[in-house]
Amino acid sequence: MTEAPETTPSRRALIGWGGAGLALGAVAAGGAVAMARTGDDVVPAAAGTGAAIPFHGERQAGIATPVQDRLHFAAFDVKTDDRAEFVQLLKDWTAAARRMTAGQSVGEGAYGGLAEAPPDDTGEALGLKPSRLTLTFGFGPSLFEKYGEAFGIADARPEALAELPKFAGDNLDKNRSGGDLCVQACADDPQVAVHAIRNLARIGMGKVVIRWSQLGFGKTSSTTPEEQTPRNLMGFKDGTRNIAGTETDRLEKFVWVGEKDGPAWMAGGSYLVARRIRMHIETWDRTSLQEQEDIFGRDKGEGAPVGKAKERDEPFLKAMLPDAHVRLAHPDSNDGATILRRGYSFTDGTDGLGRLDAGLFFLAYQRDPRTGFIRIQRNLALDALNEYIQHVGSALFAVPPGVRDKDDWWGRTLFGKEA
Amino acid sequence: MTEAPETTPSRRALIGWGGAGLALGAVAAGGAVAMARTGDDVVPAAAGTGAAIPFHGERQAGIATPVQDRLHFAAFDVKTDDRAEFVQLLKDWTAAARRMTAGQSVGEGAYGGLAEAPPDDTGEALGLKPSRLTLTFGFGPSLFEKYGEAFGIADARPEALAELPKFAGDNLDKNRSGGDLCVQACADDPQVAVHAIRNLARIGMGKVVIRWSQLGFGKTSSTTPEEQTPRNLMGFKDGTRNIAGTETDRLEKFVWVGEKDGPAWMAGGSYLVARRIRMHIETWDRTSLQEQEDIFGRDKGEGAPVGKAKERDEPFLKAMLPDAHVRLAHPDSNDGATILRRGYSFTDGTDGLGRLDAGLFFLAYQRDPRTGFIRIQRNLALDALNEYIQHVGSALFAVPPGVRDKDDWWGRTLFGKEA
Repeated sequence: MTEAPETTPSRRALIGWGGAGLALGAVAAGGAVAMARTGDDVVPAAAGTGAAIPFHGERQAGIATPVQDRLHFAAFDVKTDDRAEFVQLLKDWTAAARRMTAGQSVGEGAYGGLAEAPPDDTGEALGLKPSRLTLTFGFGPSLFEKYGEAFGIADARPEALAELPKFAGDNLDKNRSGGDLCVQACADDPQVAVHAIRNLARIGMGKVVIRWSQLGFGKTSSTTPEEQTPRNLMGFKDGTRNIAGTETDRLEKFVWVGEKDGPAWMAGGSYLVARRIRMHIETWDRTSLQEQEDIFGRDKGEGAPVGKAKERDEPFLKAMLPDAHVRLAHPDSNDGATILRRGYSFTDGTDGLGRLDAGLFFLAYQRDPRTGFIRIQRNLALDALNEYIQHVGSALFAVPPGVRDKDDWWGRTLFGKEA
Repeated sequence: MTEAPETTPSRRALIGWGGAGLALGAVAAGGAVAMARTGDDVVPAAAGTGAAIPFHGERQAGIATPVQDRLHFAAFDVKTDDRAEFVQLLKDWTAAARRMTAGQSVGEGAYGGLAEAPPDDTGEALGLKPSRLTLTFGFGPSLFEKYGEAFGIADARPEALAELPKFAGDNLDKNRSGGDLCVQACADDPQVAVHAIRNLARIGMGKVVIRWSQLGFGKTSSTTPEEQTPRNLMGFKDGTRNIAGTETDRLEKFVWVGEKDGPAWMAGGSYLVARRIRMHIETWDRTSLQEQEDIFGRDKGEGAPVGKAKERDEPFLKAMLPDAHVRLAHPDSNDGATILRRGYSFTDGTDGLGRLDAGLFFLAYQRDPRTGFIRIQRNLALDALNEYIQHVGSALFAVPPGVRDKDDWWGRTLFGKEA
């Protein structure tokens, strides 16, 4: 692991530097220049797991960025109908996110402020590296429903941001679904991701409240094909044919909202679908290897499609059972529909019946959910895998374009003009 | 990170080796020789995070072993009163633990068995390194209460294995407390820890059921003083004066059960106290820095005791407030009582009030809980920290000595003779 020292300051080193603002400003400016050219791709997959990912760019980081190891995802509900107060929160959140993704404490940090006041930062990430932290922000449909008039944004709601339809087999818990806002925190150190969500919640106190949150302990998809494909909790490789962070053409076609897609404030953004998918792993574990492989349409060891030898061989869909997961989810079965997956495995203790509450926290980015997730998920109504999984949480968010520079902020393209 | 190749086989490499049994046997034998001399300490703290920790030894690994980054802890209830069936489970679990800690799949693995049968291993750790996985096994008081007669072990119950008393401020959830058995899985890769617990639960199906389980995302104590002291979710360094894994004298005095302590089957073992400690982090975060530091008795940045300059300076207890946490927990305030801490931070989503369900999953090993945790926790009734924390789960386990060699198994010293 090699790290350029100037891009991987330890949090400890930055606290207490008189010149920290200056030094960081230089890093940020350099990052911004690079990002304006190439989006997220300035940080190669080979960058050390302690490195910092540039916060500024045309697009938000955390989408095409190489997938980090750990996740803390939070959905927030808004508790203020005061537009100015809400906009100030977006600015405050952006300032904190800018610092935390650079490996700095929020404000003056855990012990740089006044002794008589609560610290500006909760402190548990002091001494930890930036750990490739990305913070990715989005607006939910309910924000427009609840505050569209109060915030003067009712007319700006994208058609693509309709509530998701009910799918066959859904068993959604409303306490794990929806949300007016979301923040996806990904990092290679879970303490860094948890710290970030916690501090945003702290900053938002009285204005927003966490509706639900989810930890993910291991990535199930990679956006870097040269990496070993991660395995989900069913033991299968997941995301073999995922969109790579470097595939500019497929990103433009399937992930980024285009200038003409509308509304204008979403150009360069994306739509995020989050689904908490519980796996009935005890039942799965009693299923024969042959049946498991038939259900997926790939072999378990190598991950090769049915009848093929290697993981990355082109699948021959007709060789699979009609209800095989890979066959039904394949673009050829869905008018070409393709999404960028960024999911994580979760285990949240045990249910009341002695079973692990475990599964896949599915995260997918797409240019339009109607031609992305919704198209594919409707086809998966027949999926043989449905006997072993259940969707128990669901949310959709409009993820605006990136924060361009130090004067920009999350949501400016939507809220930047006076109402 | 340097790793000796022969001690860090990838799980992938081992599957499919015709000679895997032979190669692993050699590693295990070498490990056993070293362990008989030095206990856990054969793996230095500097060993790579992908390395394997020897499973065989006088003591169980996962106690004095340098603390790994992640945790999955499970308490099980026993569902069979058939002694032979239970003993067979202990042997089957040991065999699986021996393989998994070496980085191997259980049995023939996820795709080495018959296609018509469920795989021997659930597969999600294929291709991952051993990741310093340790599996540490214990018996709870309720095993003796429920099955003492059926298993012929009623007379063997240690006096030290009485139920813990109720402490001031306890608000225990019985669904997060107790358990007839426990397995502590620690690893640097959480997927490896989760995989291990899941496979033990799978092997135990019908004979045991998971009562509760807990994921820990970051260690809060270190047993390697040369390492940076980790911070808990209150932002303070935790475990500065913890017993180091290399401090043989303090381990003998405070952690390992001695030959004369009785009963004989526990000699070389230890007692584990597990407490789920919820932190009211939103309240804590609104507390002034001065008050936070007064409550702990250390400063937040450096971690130095009140009036001292450096973290490892000797605390001067009288300089602290009478109810400061460090003062009340210090051995000088507890007749010398000292425990080895091995706790982890947790965040389990959100409670119904928009607050993070977060805190410390406290794990402490000691020679006798009556002169260890119980002594200290009684003194902490006055702890100023109690305004910000609440103990919501509790368990105690007798952790028997180590598995000596390939013919030995978890609990043999208790169950090895015919009833």
